Amino acid sequence: MEDIILLSHGNGGENTRKLVEEILGTLGNDILNELLDAAVLPISGKIAFTTDSFIVSPIFFRGGDIGSLSVYGTVNDLSMVGATPLYLSLSFIIEEGFTFSDFRKILLSIKEGAEVSNVRVVTGDTKVVERGKGDGIFINTSGVGIIKNGRDWRKREIKDGDLVIINGGIGEHGISVMLERLGIKAGKSDLAPLNSLVLPLLDRTNGIKFMRDPTRGGVATVLNEISRKYGVGIEVYEDKLPLKEWVKESAEILGIDPLYAANEGKVLMIVDSKDADVVLNFLHEKPDGYDASIIGKVTKSSNRVYLVTHIGTKRILDTLKKDILPRIC
Amino acid sequence: MEDIILLSHGNGGENTRKLVEEILGTLGNDILNELLDAAVLPISGKIAFTTDSFIVSPIFFRGGDIGSLSVYGTVNDLSMVGATPLYLSLSFIIEEGFTFSDFRKILLSIKEGAEVSNVRVVTGDTKVVERGKGDGIFINTSGVGIIKNGRDWRKREIKDGDLVIINGGIGEHGISVMLERLGIKAGKSDLAPLNSLVLPLLDRTNGIKFMRDPTRGGVATVLNEISRKYGVGIEVYEDKLPLKEWVKESAEILGIDPLYAANEGKVLMIVDSKDADVVLNFLHEKPDGYDASIIGKVTKSSNRVYLVTHIGTKRILDTLKKDILPRIC
Repeated sequence: MEDIILLSHGNGGENTRKLVEEILGTLGNDILNELLDAAVLPISGKIAFTTDSFIVSPIFFRGGDIGSLSVYGTVNDLSMVGATPLYLSLSFIIEEGFTFSDFRKILLSIKEGAEVSNVRVVTGDTKVVERGKGDGIFINTSGVGIIKNGRDWRKREIKDGDLVIINGGIGEHGISVMLERLGIKAGKSDLAPLNSLVLPLLDRTNGIKFMRDPTRGGVATVLNEISRKYGVGIEVYEDKLPLKEWVKESAEILGIDPLYAANEGKVLMIVDSKDADVVLNFLHEKPDGYDASIIGKVTKSSNRVYLVTHIGTKRILDTLKKDILPRIC
Repeated sequence: MEDIILLSHGNGGENTRKLVEEILGTLGNDILNELLDAAVLPISGKIAFTTDSFIVSPIFFRGGDIGSLSVYGTVNDLSMVGATPLYLSLSFIIEEGFTFSDFRKILLSIKEGAEVSNVRVVTGDTKVVERGKGDGIFINTSGVGIIKNGRDWRKREIKDGDLVIINGGIGEHGISVMLERLGIKAGKSDLAPLNSLVLPLLDRTNGIKFMRDPTRGGVATVLNEISRKYGVGIEVYEDKLPLKEWVKESAEILGIDPLYAANEGKVLMIVDSKDADVVLNFLHEKPDGYDASIIGKVTKSSNRVYLVTHIGTKRILDTLKKDILPRIC
């Protein structure tokens, strides 16, 4: 008989203990093992705190799975505010009947993700719902990090002529998950932790004025958020967008604009033009930044986001209206 | 047409923004409104960090709903390690078709819960799954708090003769949710924030050696955790258990032992016998503690939990094996 998760694994009793032991067997450490109601953490300073629930479908995809996505997604959210990610919480909502073998694969992927990005899982929770009341597994990770002096970009002013920089190819996570759903074995999610990329960069220059990972809604959505938040216009140059060949082809076949497709290993930055070389030179030396490009610029003469096309015409790049890519993260 | 949540409310675009604005309209504050990837928090010292996903069914019940449960559940987990709860994260997994009117009710309940327990929601996330892939709404709350000097009970030693104290009637949340499912309008969950009860108590005495809120699995499960963690025996006196009349009657009809039923406004403490009066006197003055009782004692001669019955016999009070109360929190 297959080793599956039952409702009783969620009841707080004997089976819950077994499920928790399964988790501790893979992810245990001195703080998590205490199994207190809350983890007690020896940190102080300016703290960052974030949360994300992950409902990606399918849960295993080329380039990662819901486990590594949960770790890197939260590591990246902390990194985006200049925080060194330190501690993660981990909460599972599992549908009855989910196999222990898949659960273990996900735990191992979380373990590896935590090691790679140098964070520790310190507190957690497990819940089980009846068959048909969930979808395999959902994972929430929350994270706590610390913001060292000088890494907080939030008070810097965005001005005319500031540049939009991205560390590489866009739309790869969203498009690859869509391909996965169609059973097409092509492409690969760009899923990656960004802390080791962006934190040293913040130490190197004060020219970074905004930073966000363009996940759900993609690059176009983040640019619209910046435009709205700061009341500035942004021009994006279509022929500067770093696009892998498979992304271009698949996007055309699927009818998805890569500018709206999710990324999970990309950071979009607004950079002072005088610091662009420092940023690009740094990024170009890194495996996750070799394809970094200036893809646009801030223009105070407008308060909209425009795409400047190959042939030089301009069209408004709006926020996403329809739902083209559900359950991408 | 009813105002319902659609998959597009989860896509990161225009509709997600509307959903977020709905949340900010109710829960907004200067930190949450920044809509950064992670909240930046001005705290330092010894930090507590906790997480919980809530899948309670039904989502509205006598004495609370999934919203207030999510707030108090996490507030209580922080309080249990002696931390003053400060900041909450809030992450929704919503099934397509969930009504905005229910969503707003839950938001209001979260707002009230946060006000009552003096915490702020500072970061969040919203995800939407297809119909049939969730169950209305699931909520994850994680929390950050600060542990002031002297409130950390974790290094205190549990010894023979220490007493087990609870602040009032047991099994009320679990039994009342079960009644709710059966359509019986009786009883009421004990859902309540415990920070204002336990934190001043930790300041008043050093005699508290362990503290936990007996949620899933109930009082019997927590006592077994203590017994296992510290390698001690515990005797529980059946005739000292504070039980409301409706709990006694319903428990008998439902065939549920209240010792295994969830509580959401109770704290179970191991207290040095010389400090028991201080603790009881303090609790008896409070609305959430008037029925506080000594329900058992630590005995080093054994390493099991025993129930001493009305007639003086002893039976082992084991951890829960079967799943009697799924989706209680």
